[in-house]
Amino acid sequence: MTETRFDVLAIGNAIVDVLAHADDAFLTEHRIEKGAMTLVDEARAQRIYDGMPPGIEISGGSVANTAVGLASLGGRAAYMGKVRDDQLGGVFAHDIRAAGVAYDTPPARGGPSSARCLIVVTPDAQRSMNTYLGAAVEFSTSDLNADAIAAAQVTYLEGYLYDPPEAKRALEKAAALAKTAGRQVALTLSDAFCVDRHRADFQNLIDNYVDILFANEQEVMSLYEVAAFDDALQAVRGHCAVAALTRSGAGSVVLGDGEVHVIDAEPVDELVDTTGAGDLYAAGFLFGITHGADLATCGALGSVAAAEVISYFGARPEVGLKDLMAAKGFMVRDLMLS
Amino acid sequence: MTETRFDVLAIGNAIVDVLAHADDAFLTEHRIEKGAMTLVDEARAQRIYDGMPPGIEISGGSVANTAVGLASLGGRAAYMGKVRDDQLGGVFAHDIRAAGVAYDTPPARGGPSSARCLIVVTPDAQRSMNTYLGAAVEFSTSDLNADAIAAAQVTYLEGYLYDPPEAKRALEKAAALAKTAGRQVALTLSDAFCVDRHRADFQNLIDNYVDILFANEQEVMSLYEVAAFDDALQAVRGHCAVAALTRSGAGSVVLGDGEVHVIDAEPVDELVDTTGAGDLYAAGFLFGITHGADLATCGALGSVAAAEVISYFGARPEVGLKDLMAAKGFMVRDLMLS
Repeated sequence: MTETRFDVLAIGNAIVDVLAHADDAFLTEHRIEKGAMTLVDEARAQRIYDGMPPGIEISGGSVANTAVGLASLGGRAAYMGKVRDDQLGGVFAHDIRAAGVAYDTPPARGGPSSARCLIVVTPDAQRSMNTYLGAAVEFSTSDLNADAIAAAQVTYLEGYLYDPPEAKRALEKAAALAKTAGRQVALTLSDAFCVDRHRADFQNLIDNYVDILFANEQEVMSLYEVAAFDDALQAVRGHCAVAALTRSGAGSVVLGDGEVHVIDAEPVDELVDTTGAGDLYAAGFLFGITHGADLATCGALGSVAAAEVISYFGARPEVGLKDLMAAKGFMVRDLMLS
Repeated sequence: MTETRFDVLAIGNAIVDVLAHADDAFLTEHRIEKGAMTLVDEARAQRIYDGMPPGIEISGGSVANTAVGLASLGGRAAYMGKVRDDQLGGVFAHDIRAAGVAYDTPPARGGPSSARCLIVVTPDAQRSMNTYLGAAVEFSTSDLNADAIAAAQVTYLEGYLYDPPEAKRALEKAAALAKTAGRQVALTLSDAFCVDRHRADFQNLIDNYVDILFANEQEVMSLYEVAAFDDALQAVRGHCAVAALTRSGAGSVVLGDGEVHVIDAEPVDELVDTTGAGDLYAAGFLFGITHGADLATCGALGSVAAAEVISYFGARPEVGLKDLMAAKGFMVRDLMLS
């Protein structure tokens, strides 16, 4: 097998987040489902935005955040996702490249504008997301760079991209290209409602292609239509080599190699905004797995990266994660203090 | 005289700030003047942006921040400034209106894109600003709403708008309209280099129209071409009814009614980003002066509002300033706890 150029190549919705604080009454007034990611059309996005308090704009997108986290750990990260050639698209491309992630998906020259996610953060630090996908849904097989996929240890797929049929085809093709090249495929289920929309397709994808599955407890319970976390834990065995199941403050459970690891959450001084916790958990975990760490260490790296991102507003790391992990003494290649 | 509809109507450059952390080497490499606001053309803005780390976008603009601060204090604020009908222009308009400021300057339908200010924050919490003015420089007399000016207790002018000749004419006309209506005119000198570019014109404006002058020590020293702060203090007497001269951590000096008040800075727990300190000082001061406070109280309101905004990233208040001031026990109309 040829050398890899990337540890992880992530493919997902390229989104700029618009974050604002509001109280629960705002959610009720705008019929926003608390804690969920809801797809909205442009008209509804505009109505919610019109009612929102002043916000800040930060580049986001679930697996894009993971790619940025991986780069911050010193990993080699690449990203594919679609924006338009408008101002928010330019902001997205600038930010992900400036974070050290290889990104060269050509922007759309016409059609819907760049995707944005209107995130309302309530006083309990929960985030409720309203996503206008815009140009992101235009992602198609023609945007896949087969050479980059073959050159990545892990191709990491965002479940959200199963919503647009063209993008779903592109993810399936990317998974097949990665396997043909002898590489690994990882998947995040993204959101319990997303699983509900694509349950059978996700099960097929996992059974046929996925080596490493990321899901939170609601997502994995939805996937196997069970009511208890432990039932989901038992159900996922045998469907993929590794599964990392996150449980917010209760930490995570990692399955693989016939082992089960129960990993504690990393304590945080102040919980500010949970946006990006799962994305950064995946960054830590994937860094570990592509750098020879055992599964328990992969989970611990995920916990520390997640704890870092929830201690402030926004879904991308503000500190150099490599230094943070090295200071915590992780014995992982490329992380140890020299 | 008819009733007023606004306490303060602010006129300035409508700008979206792009903030990122970088070290001093970045300033050196890009030949950026530390601590200053430098005007850049679109090509240079693009080069700096290309080199910048990932950023966050927050609506800004000096006197726009003041208008937002005034609204946060419970004051009646209005704003005039020019954006284009692009995405960043939409973000600016949304944010200032969502903050409770009346804003109805029509966006330009063509020409340069909306203004942005690339702000590099170094580890010492200094901010170095590179402003691409874009659509903001298209502000002209045709954008003035004479009824709104006549209905505002104070029309507050941003010195930066003296750079584009059309906008300079618009500010002078706004000042004349305010005086004709029997209202007050306030001016911020904005930046010592800006004073250098327009010294004689600013002196004329102050002598003929300005009731309340805001300047930091570098700006007022540049205005009268003196080398010591006290010399500037003596020089400004007699040129305007009230002058509020800010000195960063050394507080401020307020002149007016034959009095001189030396006001302490409000202590801050952690200095994060000085962006907006002067803008919010003006918000507190103008709230006081339009609500019957004495000059010492106006200065103290300015100090508290400035201290609030420098304790985090960005130039607009994150907490309700009205509650903050009320909790601090200020005896000012519309601020006292009921």
